[in-house]
Amino acid sequence: MIDNKKLCYLDYAATTPIDRGVLKEMMPYLKEKFGNPSSIHQWGQEAMAGVEVARQKVANFLNCTSEEIVFTGSATEANNLVIQGLIKSIKITAEKPHIITSQTEHDAILRPCEVLEEEGVAEVTYLPVNKEGFIESIDVKEAIKENTVLVSIMYANNEIGVIQPIAEIGKLIGECNQLRKAEAKIYFHTDAVQAVQYLNCNLNKLNVDSMTLSAHKIYGPKGVGALYIRRGMPVRPMILGGKQESGMRSGTTNAAGIIGLAAALKMIKNQTPGAKNKNIQALRDKLISGILKTIPDTRLNGSETNRLPNNVNISFKGVEGEGMVIALDQEGIAVATGSACSAKNLQPSHVLLALGLSHEEAHGSLRLTLGKYTVQREIDKVLKVLPLIVARLRKISGH
Amino acid sequence: MIDNKKLCYLDYAATTPIDRGVLKEMMPYLKEKFGNPSSIHQWGQEAMAGVEVARQKVANFLNCTSEEIVFTGSATEANNLVIQGLIKSIKITAEKPHIITSQTEHDAILRPCEVLEEEGVAEVTYLPVNKEGFIESIDVKEAIKENTVLVSIMYANNEIGVIQPIAEIGKLIGECNQLRKAEAKIYFHTDAVQAVQYLNCNLNKLNVDSMTLSAHKIYGPKGVGALYIRRGMPVRPMILGGKQESGMRSGTTNAAGIIGLAAALKMIKNQTPGAKNKNIQALRDKLISGILKTIPDTRLNGSETNRLPNNVNISFKGVEGEGMVIALDQEGIAVATGSACSAKNLQPSHVLLALGLSHEEAHGSLRLTLGKYTVQREIDKVLKVLPLIVARLRKISGH
Repeated sequence: MIDNKKLCYLDYAATTPIDRGVLKEMMPYLKEKFGNPSSIHQWGQEAMAGVEVARQKVANFLNCTSEEIVFTGSATEANNLVIQGLIKSIKITAEKPHIITSQTEHDAILRPCEVLEEEGVAEVTYLPVNKEGFIESIDVKEAIKENTVLVSIMYANNEIGVIQPIAEIGKLIGECNQLRKAEAKIYFHTDAVQAVQYLNCNLNKLNVDSMTLSAHKIYGPKGVGALYIRRGMPVRPMILGGKQESGMRSGTTNAAGIIGLAAALKMIKNQTPGAKNKNIQALRDKLISGILKTIPDTRLNGSETNRLPNNVNISFKGVEGEGMVIALDQEGIAVATGSACSAKNLQPSHVLLALGLSHEEAHGSLRLTLGKYTVQREIDKVLKVLPLIVARLRKISGH
Repeated sequence: MIDNKKLCYLDYAATTPIDRGVLKEMMPYLKEKFGNPSSIHQWGQEAMAGVEVARQKVANFLNCTSEEIVFTGSATEANNLVIQGLIKSIKITAEKPHIITSQTEHDAILRPCEVLEEEGVAEVTYLPVNKEGFIESIDVKEAIKENTVLVSIMYANNEIGVIQPIAEIGKLIGECNQLRKAEAKIYFHTDAVQAVQYLNCNLNKLNVDSMTLSAHKIYGPKGVGALYIRRGMPVRPMILGGKQESGMRSGTTNAAGIIGLAAALKMIKNQTPGAKNKNIQALRDKLISGILKTIPDTRLNGSETNRLPNNVNISFKGVEGEGMVIALDQEGIAVATGSACSAKNLQPSHVLLALGLSHEEAHGSLRLTLGKYTVQREIDKVLKVLPLIVARLRKISGH
């Protein structure tokens, strides 16, 4: 889907093109299979059958039951649903419910937490990370209090690609729960949006109670996300109406989008395990070492080893990230300073600040994220162009 | 998009197929223009340019500014956003804020109101309708109290097609507001999902503060809706995160869906005013008079004159609506008992009960809704098949 001859797209963490095979599976639902999945007649039932097959595919991918999958309009909505919905489901007692999350979460986790605090309905602990970007399991354990109801830790970071020890944290929370009454259970949520393409998302191994997925980060369409909610986890719906999605998310079912999400997951499942990732990782490593070697005063942000195979995040001393993004864009190269969601925000990345970077260092960072269409030529082009751009920008800024 | 040779789709109020022209405009955004609209680089800017042109088109259609349009994942979400968001924006004082709505609203209005009541954060008046399905303006006026903050009345009903006097109610609320302090303003919302295809939605004439639109009811895609919010109307966002849509609805912007919504609106604007509606209305009138004439013990539900040109809703004495839907489906004819959203709900329609129908009468009702692909042959087929089905079902039930 990308014209590989001239342009160079290295922003797969922001969004991916729709895979041709995925779009092919969606097309009938954008054309003849247009029925409202809630309708009783054959047009409706045909659309609903597609949605239910898709739901089963998602469940198979995650290793859960199809009843535990709720389709939403985005991963952001899924994160909001589980956080706001869990807190709303709790009867207000003397003590506010307590949430534990981390300083490096996506805004789709941080903002709902902050607003619940502002509204006075929850208390939130934002765990720090170490210099590599990791959350220490021991910090989670120590943060747990009697009124803790939710721990929300992302599987892999969207800016620096650092992979958190989800299974380990999940096990630890499970152990805590064994010592608590059933009604005082701590639920464990993970935002797996960036992880699902590359990491094992088998729920049997992860010990989580809920998980958020997005279609458009895995070569599926925009406008659709999914939330796994373990059976029994109390979550009050946010969008109310016709009780679609078993009442968890009302609104006419977006059949084409849902079928696209399932088709995208199927492609991940079908690929030879690790094979494609190795190819991406090899190109990624060339990019990292090439930049660090040819451009002085640069450093890799986040763990070198325990990060997504497609993620590069580098600080360039004395250069503004936005200046580099714009200069690279003029050469036909797409990269980011950090999350696309906060691209217009002039604040330095909260993720890089949490790693201990100064405001200046955080401002001078680039995120380059690879994908399945990335080829050697694109890496070569960046390695040719970027040193010249950095040198030019440094000259201007008097570095 | 519909195979007109054999099948007969008369459920356009549940959903419409995507118009070929609309899908054509969407396709580039499902293929090469795949960037995340929040990204700074050309892929992102290209997608964002498409979204902003679409926003301007929607604003032009409604006669408002583009800053007053918020795109959502569905019309249900838009209704929830404005109702929940307005109540959330109000500082809690001694008296709960008061909402006025009607008994015949869509569940996407009624459920959020009910839940706000349950949560104890709002007080709601559900206005009755008369036998024809109309809300009397005087009833709205009399229901207004000192603590009234919102009146939400749908433009046209999804089950019986009855058109409410929105401009008149809006004018009345405006008059009330002139006697109130600015901070005690009553806001007026209308759910225009069913109306937008057929009625004048020029905001200059309607006197509303907010309005909900859906794409998939007007030959656009599923998974996208829009909310007009008049500048200055206080609405707190529901889905929080990356602050897309000026912070009113976070989550990666669904460019293809949004472009589809705008393209669908453009087609309404481009059609010869009234011409297509007249054609649909003529077919609709044949259908109504044909059924009422050939099948005994039938009655039209809702006003005969002041209803959407595509809506038929008829009660059949001694027959279950669902039985008719299934029997018609076997003949390749798609109709509904009422709202698709509550198709699986075995309760009789709350709309028909509000008209004063008995439970039995409400259960024995059919909704047939026409659209721009409806042809005479389909009407003839219904008029041929339906009398036989009704006679057979009445025989079984011993009517």
